[in-house]
Amino acid sequence: MPDFNFHILIDARYSDLDPQWHVNNVRYLTFMEQARLKYLLQLGLWDGHDFNRLGMIVADIHIAYIAPMLFGQTARMALRVVRMGNKSFDFEYELTDEASGKLLIKAESVMVAYDYAGQRSIPIPPDWRSKISAFEGRDFAQGA
Amino acid sequence: MPDFNFHILIDARYSDLDPQWHVNNVRYLTFMEQARLKYLLQLGLWDGHDFNRLGMIVADIHIAYIAPMLFGQTARMALRVVRMGNKSFDFEYELTDEASGKLLIKAESVMVAYDYAGQRSIPIPPDWRSKISAFEGRDFAQGA
Amino acid sequence: MPDFNFHILIDARYSDLDPQWHVNNVRYLTFMEQARLKYLLQLGLWDGHDFNRLGMIVADIHIAYIAPMLFGQTARMALRVVRMGNKSFDFEYELTDEASGKLLIKAESVMVAYDYAGQRSIPIPPDWRSKISAFEGRDFAQGA
Amino acid sequence: MPDFNFHILIDARYSDLDPQWHVNNVRYLTFMEQARLKYLLQLGLWDGHDFNRLGMIVADIHIAYIAPMLFGQTARMALRVVRMGNKSFDFEYELTDEASGKLLIKAESVMVAYDYAGQRSIPIPPDWRSKISAFEGRDFAQGA
Repeated sequence: MPDFNFHILIDARYSDLDPQWHVNNVRYLTFMEQARLKYLLQLGLWDGHDFNRLGMIVADIHIAYIAPMLFGQTARMALRVVRMGNKSFDFEYELTDEASGKLLIKAESVMVAYDYAGQRSIPIPPDWRSKISAFEGRDFAQGA
Repeated sequence: MPDFNFHILIDARYSDLDPQWHVNNVRYLTFMEQARLKYLLQLGLWDGHDFNRLGMIVADIHIAYIAPMLFGQTARMALRVVRMGNKSFDFEYELTDEASGKLLIKAESVMVAYDYAGQRSIPIPPDWRSKISAFEGRDFAQGA
Repeated sequence: MPDFNFHILIDARYSDLDPQWHVNNVRYLTFMEQARLKYLLQLGLWDGHDFNRLGMIVADIHIAYIAPMLFGQTARMALRVVRMGNKSFDFEYELTDEASGKLLIKAESVMVAYDYAGQRSIPIPPDWRSKISAFEGRDFAQGA
Repeated sequence: MPDFNFHILIDARYSDLDPQWHVNNVRYLTFMEQARLKYLLQLGLWDGHDFNRLGMIVADIHIAYIAPMLFGQTARMALRVVRMGNKSFDFEYELTDEASGKLLIKAESVMVAYDYAGQRSIPIPPDWRSKISAFEGRDFAQGA
């Protein structure tokens, strides 16, 4: 499996913490969400402005918590597409401490191609398939 | 499988919404978290005040998104313990629309018994095992 | 000054807390926001669905923190309109502990009548003025 | 009045947005909070770890919303101490668009020196007074 070609850096905010004094378990999904949108932006699959053209919706998330993240810690949220079906595709995520490289969480999400204007799922658009294939260096052609 | 013996009601806040005009996918984990703590309170496993005695930590979450939740919608977050190991146990969750009973999400989480003062996992305390067994009407005795 | 004619009840969520073990100072604005929207709904000034027809935008907020709110505490967020100008109007808020009546915060906000589709401020619509006057039992007629 | 000697940069997260497609009015207080804590860290008034030694609590906030902040926008949250009394002191804030310098919000907050362990307000510690005076280039000596 190749390394991740995409990541964002996350600086934990005080508001990400909970009474247990670490980043709340819920907030990691926010970091995953932020990484997904920046990925779409970088690949030219979304303009960053029109949320009715975001083009996908979350269907399923699995997240494994390995080590806590603390205030002042900078973490690297890496993600990649690992599967593309007809209407759905999968992201894989790894959050690591930027200083030490220590693994903090691992996660996967199933995304469904979605038309927010029409409020319905759609087949993955061909340009999504080709741009993601090119970026990830894998052939995600339909039927591949 | 018996029905759920515990639930809380959730009234979606405007601040739970995202630019897609529905409850953000991340917020459902907040509802799950709230239900877990109220469950501990009701079973007398936590006093509701001392967060260093919360007694458990999240190790793993899986969530399947079935239908969106909207502003003004009241939903029922039901949960139950479905497994108890030596140090870990599992919650199962269902979020349904309170008016129609329609299923919105299904989820599971793995919890680890945890000593926040000592920052380490611990065996599930016997009173947790007995109180949860009694409440759920199932025998979660160690080695059962 | 008459009493408040409108309030909502707020049950503090674990996710509203911060590392100091009380409701985070930021969250009270979320409760104020929730109360404003429910007020619009009750007065028939918003349909609860179309966020492009929300009709107002926040221009200014002042909040005084009197006493902390804790997990498990139910609080009453009361609000009322106390001024209507040509394009702007003011809400006044009081958050009290529901059990004891103890005051937790006092706040005011300046709202501007706003057309989200056109992205511009507008004069307060006449039906807002009349419905709010009727509900509050005060004459907020233009030029009054 | 001198310029601000301290600022942090904020990259708007998708989770900071609301259904109106801009950063929610509540989130700016989160940015202010984050700036305050980083200020304490930089001046050596807090270790970044022990939240029982945070040393201050929010008593009052005023915020004026000038222009909206959007997804993908980087903003500069600048703050400075402008007054120190016996037990309380004031921060002043300006949030500007990092690219254009355009003003987005102006705010002030009153902080009270606080002992979280003892749950009570305290006189501002002398080293806070001297370090803040030195950093801001103003004499905040008691009785000054």
